[in-house]
Amino acid sequence: MILNRPNRRKICAILVDRANYGRLKPVMRAIRDSAAMELQVVAAGTMVLERFGQPVQVVKHDGFSVDGEIYMELEGSTPATMAKSVGFGVVEFSNEFHRLRPDVVLLIGDRYEALAAAIAAAYMNICIVHVQGGEVSGSIDESARHAISKFSHFHVPSTKRAADYLLRMGERPDAILTIGCPSSDIARAMKRELDPVVINRAGSGAKIDVAHPFLLVVFHPTTTEYGGETAQVTELLQALDQIAMPTIMLWPNIDAGSDHISRTIRMFRDQRKAAWLRCLINLSPEDYLRVLASAACAVGNSSSFVRDAGYFGTPVVLVGNRQEGREVDRHVLTAAPVAGEVSARVQSQLSHGRYAPSRLYGDGHVSARIAGALAELTPYTQKRLHYVYEPAAVAKVAS
Amino acid sequence: MILNRPNRRKICAILVDRANYGRLKPVMRAIRDSAAMELQVVAAGTMVLERFGQPVQVVKHDGFSVDGEIYMELEGSTPATMAKSVGFGVVEFSNEFHRLRPDVVLLIGDRYEALAAAIAAAYMNICIVHVQGGEVSGSIDESARHAISKFSHFHVPSTKRAADYLLRMGERPDAILTIGCPSSDIARAMKRELDPVVINRAGSGAKIDVAHPFLLVVFHPTTTEYGGETAQVTELLQALDQIAMPTIMLWPNIDAGSDHISRTIRMFRDQRKAAWLRCLINLSPEDYLRVLASAACAVGNSSSFVRDAGYFGTPVVLVGNRQEGREVDRHVLTAAPVAGEVSARVQSQLSHGRYAPSRLYGDGHVSARIAGALAELTPYTQKRLHYVYEPAAVAKVAS
Amino acid sequence: MILNRPNRRKICAILVDRANYGRLKPVMRAIRDSAAMELQVVAAGTMVLERFGQPVQVVKHDGFSVDGEIYMELEGSTPATMAKSVGFGVVEFSNEFHRLRPDVVLLIGDRYEALAAAIAAAYMNICIVHVQGGEVSGSIDESARHAISKFSHFHVPSTKRAADYLLRMGERPDAILTIGCPSSDIARAMKRELDPVVINRAGSGAKIDVAHPFLLVVFHPTTTEYGGETAQVTELLQALDQIAMPTIMLWPNIDAGSDHISRTIRMFRDQRKAAWLRCLINLSPEDYLRVLASAACAVGNSSSFVRDAGYFGTPVVLVGNRQEGREVDRHVLTAAPVAGEVSARVQSQLSHGRYAPSRLYGDGHVSARIAGALAELTPYTQKRLHYVYEPAAVAKVAS
Amino acid sequence: MILNRPNRRKICAILVDRANYGRLKPVMRAIRDSAAMELQVVAAGTMVLERFGQPVQVVKHDGFSVDGEIYMELEGSTPATMAKSVGFGVVEFSNEFHRLRPDVVLLIGDRYEALAAAIAAAYMNICIVHVQGGEVSGSIDESARHAISKFSHFHVPSTKRAADYLLRMGERPDAILTIGCPSSDIARAMKRELDPVVINRAGSGAKIDVAHPFLLVVFHPTTTEYGGETAQVTELLQALDQIAMPTIMLWPNIDAGSDHISRTIRMFRDQRKAAWLRCLINLSPEDYLRVLASAACAVGNSSSFVRDAGYFGTPVVLVGNRQEGREVDRHVLTAAPVAGEVSARVQSQLSHGRYAPSRLYGDGHVSARIAGALAELTPYTQKRLHYVYEPAAVAKVAS
Repeated sequence: MILNRPNRRKICAILVDRANYGRLKPVMRAIRDSAAMELQVVAAGTMVLERFGQPVQVVKHDGFSVDGEIYMELEGSTPATMAKSVGFGVVEFSNEFHRLRPDVVLLIGDRYEALAAAIAAAYMNICIVHVQGGEVSGSIDESARHAISKFSHFHVPSTKRAADYLLRMGERPDAILTIGCPSSDIARAMKRELDPVVINRAGSGAKIDVAHPFLLVVFHPTTTEYGGETAQVTELLQALDQIAMPTIMLWPNIDAGSDHISRTIRMFRDQRKAAWLRCLINLSPEDYLRVLASAACAVGNSSSFVRDAGYFGTPVVLVGNRQEGREVDRHVLTAAPVAGEVSARVQSQLSHGRYAPSRLYGDGHVSARIAGALAELTPYTQKRLHYVYEPAAVAKVAS
Repeated sequence: MILNRPNRRKICAILVDRANYGRLKPVMRAIRDSAAMELQVVAAGTMVLERFGQPVQVVKHDGFSVDGEIYMELEGSTPATMAKSVGFGVVEFSNEFHRLRPDVVLLIGDRYEALAAAIAAAYMNICIVHVQGGEVSGSIDESARHAISKFSHFHVPSTKRAADYLLRMGERPDAILTIGCPSSDIARAMKRELDPVVINRAGSGAKIDVAHPFLLVVFHPTTTEYGGETAQVTELLQALDQIAMPTIMLWPNIDAGSDHISRTIRMFRDQRKAAWLRCLINLSPEDYLRVLASAACAVGNSSSFVRDAGYFGTPVVLVGNRQEGREVDRHVLTAAPVAGEVSARVQSQLSHGRYAPSRLYGDGHVSARIAGALAELTPYTQKRLHYVYEPAAVAKVAS
Repeated sequence: MILNRPNRRKICAILVDRANYGRLKPVMRAIRDSAAMELQVVAAGTMVLERFGQPVQVVKHDGFSVDGEIYMELEGSTPATMAKSVGFGVVEFSNEFHRLRPDVVLLIGDRYEALAAAIAAAYMNICIVHVQGGEVSGSIDESARHAISKFSHFHVPSTKRAADYLLRMGERPDAILTIGCPSSDIARAMKRELDPVVINRAGSGAKIDVAHPFLLVVFHPTTTEYGGETAQVTELLQALDQIAMPTIMLWPNIDAGSDHISRTIRMFRDQRKAAWLRCLINLSPEDYLRVLASAACAVGNSSSFVRDAGYFGTPVVLVGNRQEGREVDRHVLTAAPVAGEVSARVQSQLSHGRYAPSRLYGDGHVSARIAGALAELTPYTQKRLHYVYEPAAVAKVAS
Repeated sequence: MILNRPNRRKICAILVDRANYGRLKPVMRAIRDSAAMELQVVAAGTMVLERFGQPVQVVKHDGFSVDGEIYMELEGSTPATMAKSVGFGVVEFSNEFHRLRPDVVLLIGDRYEALAAAIAAAYMNICIVHVQGGEVSGSIDESARHAISKFSHFHVPSTKRAADYLLRMGERPDAILTIGCPSSDIARAMKRELDPVVINRAGSGAKIDVAHPFLLVVFHPTTTEYGGETAQVTELLQALDQIAMPTIMLWPNIDAGSDHISRTIRMFRDQRKAAWLRCLINLSPEDYLRVLASAACAVGNSSSFVRDAGYFGTPVVLVGNRQEGREVDRHVLTAAPVAGEVSARVQSQLSHGRYAPSRLYGDGHVSARIAGALAELTPYTQKRLHYVYEPAAVAKVAS
């Protein structure tokens, strides 16, 4: 039974993948516990798909009620099906927003599902708060992130540089609610000890002994290089085969090209029967962070390797262009997707060992600041490039 | 029969309303006449709707072949149906681009149909050239325009200020192809004499004698003020009723709220039976410009009142917030949507009479420059916020 | 606040146009008043469109709560946009059924919006009860009606012939719940006196004096003759012009070709300025029936001229093929869409005057029987052509 | 380059899965080789998906040009996503038909993708020829098949009973073009010798020695029993484990519930590591038929076990309700999805050995008859339940 208390602000949190939830969870909890706000949750994208382990079940298991589940992913994993999934997503989010009538839509990140939610909300005159704007990376996510910023009414950038970039892009100074990534809150609060059962009960392949050093590998497609992903992951697998230390590999996301990566990994696994490789579909946000915190080195191109790994001081080798331009701390080395270069960088990180923790992407006390800002902001609908309000510009302009 | 000459660059021009075509037409002609390029045309939105006079027929009549016609407008004219139309548009444009496989998509303006095309092209790794980016206005178009810029690989801003704003937003300096609005080319080249038959053969209401002064009125909804449009157009009609001089009124576009405006005009027409009012559905781009060039004053909130009217020196009264923030020349006065204020401003413009022509939005020689740039640019897919390439920023960034 | 009493059967009534509601209203009332059932209402198609007077508001005004409103009509009114509207409808009804989780979906008629609902329900394993199956007509509705029957688990045919046809088509004998059209209940119960204010306050054109004889005209497109509708309605208007008696004309529905009909009527009205013609957008179900009951003759091709007019004994001239094959009583004459033939038939009916009431389509006591059956039926999902259960057929069949 | 010879009839063949192509291929060849017709091919559904081995590539490899590829499958494999996929399919087929403008659409079978094509064609007034109507089975396919018949203008039923059922359902006698399933043509013409390389080069699991007896297993979900498929396939796998003879298993189709079946098979394979099991994704139509022709027994619920296996005399055990009601010959035994019953039936069939070939579903000379009929039929659009043309019925009916 839905009880709408009319005097409470309705905040609709959009979750489009496991990582979204991993980051927004402490914010969602703070909203739910607030007397001034009512939490709505809409899960979309891979959150609801069995193929990705239905992460929405974790959300429910954590005690959140989920107000809408959106199936929007067209099968195919090509650029055209990815584009069409955006379209379907806009339609579906419009339906949900029409029904739930939130006061504020809370978005995070740069995925196409989040873009779809932003477009639906913006055209429906719903105020949008966007977390993680102003960052720089590769892939189509780079364009989507800034487009989402252009539809968003308020921003929670993760770093000072990102906040500065948002201002330079013409966003209102008073629309920056706070700075910091809420995932740092989870990283700070959680127990870091890794339960070996979690790693070895699901998935397939080698048994991982977490008492000994292991690698964590995540490699998503860079959609702007569609067609190149098979060669790239092949090089990566060769590098791992040279290193041949225990490795936990997660399957890629659903972006265009991911089927090719999955197929390459599957064929490598079946043919090479590497004794060092374990493949996993799904981990809860905390378990994922524990694996990341415990890994001897994280290899691949997940954005969590930039932000969360830094908080833990886990050494990282970023492979390829997907994170190019991303603001990173000292724990990151980069490598072209060439077997020799990747293995050399990994060896170098293994020699170096863990880094001092970084607070670049958040101090672990971000969620409360976001929740407080959500309760107090004044929603508005009409955005306007802020440049026109600069003293010099207010000369001859229609008003 | 489609003859693809493989060595020619395929430029796909997107037309989503009558005004689009009015502006892109000289560019389309230049592309078609180029040995280095092949022109593809996709017509969408109101271009194909009988209710809007099917402007696509004018395109065909002008000798262009139309490669795709997209029906994407969901009936309803509410914020939710407008949002869903964006979604359907993304799906449909994805289909067309998948089939036509253009090298470059050429877009203009800030409408949701253009946004849909931009998203489809961007996720399909097709290079986008966007005309009219960097401007500032009201309505959701403001957000959409900048989002389109964030998906676009090259830009043709209309003014120096717009070019400067694009650079400040983080676009690449070498991605600004040229400056100027191609509609100035049509304005420069066309005969300005207005044929009275064109005005009086279609539409309904008073007969307009073009030898005497008349007003041109266009009033679209400001979607971010959805729900307010009926009161606004009512005030506008009262102002016109006070002035009571011969008036040509065009029906509004298809944005959320347009049904309310149409209904208000229709009721006013039926009940008031004003002897000074003529309502028209559709004019060819040139005929529209001739009416605008000949009007004693243009009243309302069309962006053509800012750009094209300036070229002609036609006095303008901008009503309401739809064009707020837009860079304007001396020919523009602004008025809140209040009857007394609007009529006072119109009287003031009528007293002043015509202005000296403005070249703010183009010098009449823009199309050839755009076509030349289209032939010579090097398409690319991976955008990245340009700030990271500034000397100071290239300190510690993943690459 | 939605209170789901888990032990009550949830019946989801689908309303896709004004006529649907006119017929299902007494059934909806009976469901709502039943202790065993809970009524859900989903309004779609023209029910929610301002252009059609938003008939959903009448539903709410009558005290029903509306659980879902579906915008599914793509603008264009061409065969292709009508086809695509079916597709969008399936998507949207799937969303609503996923959310409302009805035990039974209650459908009526043969429109594409109802087909969309039937497909969504059938693929989602929801039991379907269909009213008005087994009839025969023209237009694509004929095919859609039988396809809906093939997805429906239970049937309420309007006539004995329709019931017989359903059995012959292979439907289960025990799946025929009752016989009769519920619109006869409204016809029986309502006051027939026509309030002249209702006719003359809205719409445009001549004032109708209901104390004197008048015609009622409704002419929808026959979609299978798309392209022919302009010529057909032109002939019809010529016939009416010859007759030149006071005439109430309703605008056509939204099927492919309706824009052409509307435009032809509008042009005739503007140019001919016929003093006998009044055009109306929308009437409540009861007011419509009162007009039909009071008309001296009903001319056109609405199915209500077959069913409801018979109940009242109103003379009818069916024009064209849209109702060809429909079971009719003595009050109906048919005419090809040729001016002379139409006017001759109308004159003939005017000479004849009113007919004795017909009970062919219902005795006025149908709704209670339907509601009772809805409460007691046993929902099932797996349909199977009943022929295989005939004694002779059960020889060698996989089971 | 598309050369439209205007005097040739355009026949658009719709292929929505591997089996479609296996059956329509000889018809397509006959159309292509006809001087009177032009072949158009649209591939949709799993035909274009990498996850299903992209069977469309086989079509191209066989020398057919493919005019349209439709991605319409929403991820999820639930009843709701299957319903929505129908909707998306209608939209996409509408686009393709609008572009290709076929004179006749050629459909086969009962899948939801074929239903989507039928709806699009019917609402666009395109003449539909449907192959395999009039049959009886379980699952939602049963309803879809008859609904497709109700939209189709001509029919090619596979058996005399199916033809009789179509007539009884009210289809026009002269709309039955011929009788027989074209897959019998392939079965007749092909070399039956099975190349062991084809079986063992792709897929995973045990190596199959085709010189020794082996089972062929295909088990699709019965969508009307959604939720029961996991238990059913578990029983089936237990039966196979008891039998433990070399087994070729194909993955299920994409219907609601298929993910559960796939997962159950995958878990069984990984945990049980059965030495007798080989899993295959994809086979060309001929290779599939060769495997079916060579198998000692076919077990599961594919419709090819009824039709094609009969032609070869391969013993079959039909498991569960998916084919219930289907007309079968002597080679078929049925079993409930209970391990003991399945294994008993399989043992019984293995004891029996091969059956005499059946011509129930075609004599191997069907394609030429279909192609001839396609060239000579007179397309029409307006269907009407044929009962009204029976002498007794032509009493009082609107015309």
